[in-house]
Amino acid sequence: MTSSTQAHPAPIPIEELAQCVQATLQGSSDVLISGLSHLEGATCSDLSFVLKPKFHEVAKSSAAAAFLTAQPIPDDPRPQLICPNPMLALVTLAQKFFVPPFPERGIHPTAVTGHDVRIGPDVSIGPLVTIGDRAQIGSGVTIYAGAHIGENSVIGDDCILYPQVSLLTNCILGHRVILHSGTVIGSDGFGYAQHEGRHHKIPQLGNVVIEDDVEIGANVTVDRATFGSTIIKEGTKIDNQVQIAHNVAIGEHCIIVAQVGIAGSTRLGHHVMIGGQAGLVDHLTIGDQVKIASGAGVTNHVESNHTVGGRPAVAHNTWRKAQVLQYQLPEMRNELRALRKEIESLKQQLPKTS
Amino acid sequence: MTSSTQAHPAPIPIEELAQCVQATLQGSSDVLISGLSHLEGATCSDLSFVLKPKFHEVAKSSAAAAFLTAQPIPDDPRPQLICPNPMLALVTLAQKFFVPPFPERGIHPTAVTGHDVRIGPDVSIGPLVTIGDRAQIGSGVTIYAGAHIGENSVIGDDCILYPQVSLLTNCILGHRVILHSGTVIGSDGFGYAQHEGRHHKIPQLGNVVIEDDVEIGANVTVDRATFGSTIIKEGTKIDNQVQIAHNVAIGEHCIIVAQVGIAGSTRLGHHVMIGGQAGLVDHLTIGDQVKIASGAGVTNHVESNHTVGGRPAVAHNTWRKAQVLQYQLPEMRNELRALRKEIESLKQQLPKTS
Amino acid sequence: MTSSTQAHPAPIPIEELAQCVQATLQGSSDVLISGLSHLEGATCSDLSFVLKPKFHEVAKSSAAAAFLTAQPIPDDPRPQLICPNPMLALVTLAQKFFVPPFPERGIHPTAVTGHDVRIGPDVSIGPLVTIGDRAQIGSGVTIYAGAHIGENSVIGDDCILYPQVSLLTNCILGHRVILHSGTVIGSDGFGYAQHEGRHHKIPQLGNVVIEDDVEIGANVTVDRATFGSTIIKEGTKIDNQVQIAHNVAIGEHCIIVAQVGIAGSTRLGHHVMIGGQAGLVDHLTIGDQVKIASGAGVTNHVESNHTVGGRPAVAHNTWRKAQVLQYQLPEMRNELRALRKEIESLKQQLPKTS
Repeated sequence: MTSSTQAHPAPIPIEELAQCVQATLQGSSDVLISGLSHLEGATCSDLSFVLKPKFHEVAKSSAAAAFLTAQPIPDDPRPQLICPNPMLALVTLAQKFFVPPFPERGIHPTAVTGHDVRIGPDVSIGPLVTIGDRAQIGSGVTIYAGAHIGENSVIGDDCILYPQVSLLTNCILGHRVILHSGTVIGSDGFGYAQHEGRHHKIPQLGNVVIEDDVEIGANVTVDRATFGSTIIKEGTKIDNQVQIAHNVAIGEHCIIVAQVGIAGSTRLGHHVMIGGQAGLVDHLTIGDQVKIASGAGVTNHVESNHTVGGRPAVAHNTWRKAQVLQYQLPEMRNELRALRKEIESLKQQLPKTS
Repeated sequence: MTSSTQAHPAPIPIEELAQCVQATLQGSSDVLISGLSHLEGATCSDLSFVLKPKFHEVAKSSAAAAFLTAQPIPDDPRPQLICPNPMLALVTLAQKFFVPPFPERGIHPTAVTGHDVRIGPDVSIGPLVTIGDRAQIGSGVTIYAGAHIGENSVIGDDCILYPQVSLLTNCILGHRVILHSGTVIGSDGFGYAQHEGRHHKIPQLGNVVIEDDVEIGANVTVDRATFGSTIIKEGTKIDNQVQIAHNVAIGEHCIIVAQVGIAGSTRLGHHVMIGGQAGLVDHLTIGDQVKIASGAGVTNHVESNHTVGGRPAVAHNTWRKAQVLQYQLPEMRNELRALRKEIESLKQQLPKTS
Repeated sequence: MTSSTQAHPAPIPIEELAQCVQATLQGSSDVLISGLSHLEGATCSDLSFVLKPKFHEVAKSSAAAAFLTAQPIPDDPRPQLICPNPMLALVTLAQKFFVPPFPERGIHPTAVTGHDVRIGPDVSIGPLVTIGDRAQIGSGVTIYAGAHIGENSVIGDDCILYPQVSLLTNCILGHRVILHSGTVIGSDGFGYAQHEGRHHKIPQLGNVVIEDDVEIGANVTVDRATFGSTIIKEGTKIDNQVQIAHNVAIGEHCIIVAQVGIAGSTRLGHHVMIGGQAGLVDHLTIGDQVKIASGAGVTNHVESNHTVGGRPAVAHNTWRKAQVLQYQLPEMRNELRALRKEIESLKQQLPKTS
C-alpha cells in the first residue's frame, strides 16, 4: 500500500548518473536505475546511498542496484558511484531525474485575477487561485489550487506556492521561494494599546519580505511588521508550524525546526540553527551561527557562535550538566538530611568544653 | 446565545434509546428525549449521563429528563438507562440519533476535477473542492468546501475531509478516515544537504499513508517521506496542531494530544498515548502502550509499557520526584550553607590535637 | 525592497492629527504628514512616537517629521503632539487615516452561497468564499477570498474574516470580531470512549461562541463543545497558532500569546494574560487577572490576581528562584561531596571516647 519513488518515464543508465554528479563509477556500468531510495526500502532497480562507513553492512544487505558513497563499500560487486558528498549528489540526481514534473503551464480558467495584475511567462496557476489587484508574479512561478495572493504582493521567479497558502497584501517574495500548504504570510502582528482595561488594536501597517531561496513549511505563520518589514533572509529554511512575529528579522541560511516561536522584533544572524519547539522572547539579538537546542526558552541575547539550551536558555554545557542533575535531586536531598544527622551526632560527641 | 444539541426532527421515546444500547430501563418509560447533554447543561428534554457514582449528587440537581448510568442513582424518580459503559452508550446514541445529517450527496457544480479521476457512489463533494488528476475517491466520502485532493491520491470509503484540508499528491487514506479543517497531509519533509554554507533541498519523493479509522484534528501537518511512506496506522487519533515529520511511523490506536511534535523517522508502537505539547526527537523507537506526559521532551528510546515525563524524558516516578524538588532548591541551598557553617564551627571546637 | 506605511492619498496637516487625538501641538504647525512609523524607520514625512523619556535621544536622531509623545522632547524643533497615552493616540490616528481601505463592497460573483442565507448591507464578500445554508451575516462584514462559512453560523456586524478562515457549522461571532487566515473555528473536540482497545468518537454536538471585539490570529484552532458552547468572551485577543479545546471558556479582555494550548473545559476569568507556548491542562479554573509566564505548564487551579510560571506552574517567585538555582546544581552537588568528606574527616579526628 506504500508508494515508492515517483517513477521516471524510462530507466537511466548508471553511467549517465555518474557523469551528472562527476562521480567515479566503480564496478559494472551495465545497470539501469529507475528510482532512488534509502538502504532499507530500496528495490533492485533503485540507486541508494551510504553516508558513513558504519552503514556498509546495511548496504550489503540492501536490495539496491547501486550505491552513492564517499568510501567504497568493500566486497560488494554492485556498481558504486564514489563522490565526496553523497547526500549532495543525491540531491542533484533527485532534482534532475526523479522529482515529479511540474503541473501544466498556464492559468487555470477558474483562477480569479484582480485588475492590473502582472504575470510573467511560463507560470502555472492552478484552479481556484485568487490573485488580488496589482499583484506581480514572476516567470516560472507555480501556484497550486486554492492559494491566495493578496493585493500589491510581489512574487519573484520560479517560486512554488502549495495549495491553500495565503500570501497577504503587500508582501514580497524573492526568487525560488517555496511556501508549503496552509502557511500564512502577512497576518497582522499581535499588538494592542491598553486603555481602561480594553485592548485597542495597533494597526499593522508593514509587510513581510522573504528573500531568495527561502523555503517555509506547512501551517507556518509570519506576521507583517507594525511598520517596516518582517524579514527572512536568503537561503533560510523553516519547518512546519513555526510562528514568526512582527518585525522579526531572520538572517541568511538559518535552519528553524518545527513548532518554534519567535516573538516580536527579535533579530537572528546568519546560519542560526533552532531546534524544534524552542521559543525566543521579543527584542532579542541572536548572533551568527548560534545554535539553540530544541525546547529551549531563550530570554537573553546570545552572542555569535554560542550554543544554548534549557529554559531559560544558558550555555550548552551549563544546561546539560544541570539537566542531568535535576533527576538526582531526591538523592541530594537525602544526602543533605544524612549530613544534618551526622553533624548533630558529631555535636553530641564533642567534649563538653568551653 | 449558545446553541444546544442539534435538534432531532422528532423526540425519541426513552425505550427506543434503551433498546438501541441494550440498557436496562429503570423508572418511567413515558419520556421523550430530544437531545443529549452533560449534567450541568441539560434541559428537561435531554438525556444526560453519569460516569461515576461521585456525580450522583450533581445528577440529582440536573434538569435532565433521564440518565445513562452504570450504577443506579438512588432516590431519583427519573428514568435511568443502566448499562456497563455509559460513555460508549452515549456514543452509540449520539451517532444514531443526534449527529447532524451529512450534507447532500452529489458533486457540487463548482468543484474542479482533473482528468482520469475515479469517484465512488454516494459521495458528497462540496463547492470549490479541487481534485487532481488520477485521484481515486471511495464510496460514501464527504469532502467539504474548499478542500484540495492532490494528483494520484487515494481516499477510501466513508472518509470525511473538512473545509480547507490539503491532501497532497500520491497520499493514501484508508476507510473512515476523518481529516479536520486546515490539516495538511503530504507537505515536504524537512531535509537538506549542507554544502559550502548553503542548504540544498533533498527532494521528498515518498508519500503519506493513513490507515482505517484514523482521525486527525485541525491544522495538523503530516510530512511525506523522503523515500517510502510516513505511516499512521489503524485507529489512531490525533488532536489539533500536531506536527508529524517525514518517515515517522505511528502504530495502531494511539492517542496524540494537541501541539505534539514528532521528528523524522521516529517509530511508535500501538496504543501509545502522548500528552499535549510533548516533543520527540528523530530516529527514536517508542514501544507499545507507552505513555508520554504532556510537555515531555523525549530524547531516548522508550520500551513498551513504560511511562515517561520531563525534559529530557525519564521514568515517570523519577520525573515526578524531581519536579517537586526543583522548587525546594532554595531551601536546599540554604541548608547547604547552614551545614557548611556548622562544620566550620565544629572544626574550631575540636581539641587541638594531632 | 521594504514597503513603508500604506500611502494616504493626500498628506495630512499636523494640526488635523492633533485635533483628532486632542493633543497639544508644540512647535511648528506647518507640517504635512503622509505616514506613521517607529523612530528608526521613519522618513521625513512620517509621524513617529515616543513612549518613554528614555527614547528622547533616539527620537532626536530619527528622521521623523513630528512626534507623538507624553513628555516633550527637549531641544527638538520639530512639531510634537503632546498627549497622555501616545500609543492610544497612534492607534486612533492609524485607524482613521492610515489603514488600507476595505475591499470593494458587494458579493463577488464567484462566491458560493447556500440557501436561506441572510446577508446584511454594506458587506464585502470576496472571490471563492463559500457560505453554507441558513448562515447569517451582519452589516459591514468583510470576508476575504476563500474563507468558508458553515451552515447555520452567525456573524455579527463589522467582522473581518481573512482568506482561508474556516468558521464551521453552528458557530456564532459577535460584532467586530477579527479572524486571521487559516484559523479554524468549530473543529471537533478531541473526545473518545475507550472500549476493547479501540477509541470510539464522541460526537461533538456543541458549538463555538465568540463575543464582541475578539481578535484571533492566524492558524488558531478553537474546537466546538461536546455539548453546549466553547466560549471566548468580549474583548479577548488571541495570537497565532493557539489551540483552544472543547468546552473551554475564556473570560473578557484576556491576552493569549502565540502557541499556547488550553485543554478541555478549562475556564479563564477576565483580563488573564498567558505568555507564549504555555500549556494548561483540562478542567482548571483560572481566576481573574491571572498572569501565566511563557512556557509555563499549568496543572492546578490559579486564584485571581496571581502570577505563575514553570512546569509545573507555581507562584512566580518560587519559580524564578528555582529557575536560577537549577544551573547551580553542579556546584551544590560538589559542595555536598565536600561536606561529606569533611564530616568523615571530623569523625576521624574525634577523640575515641564512648
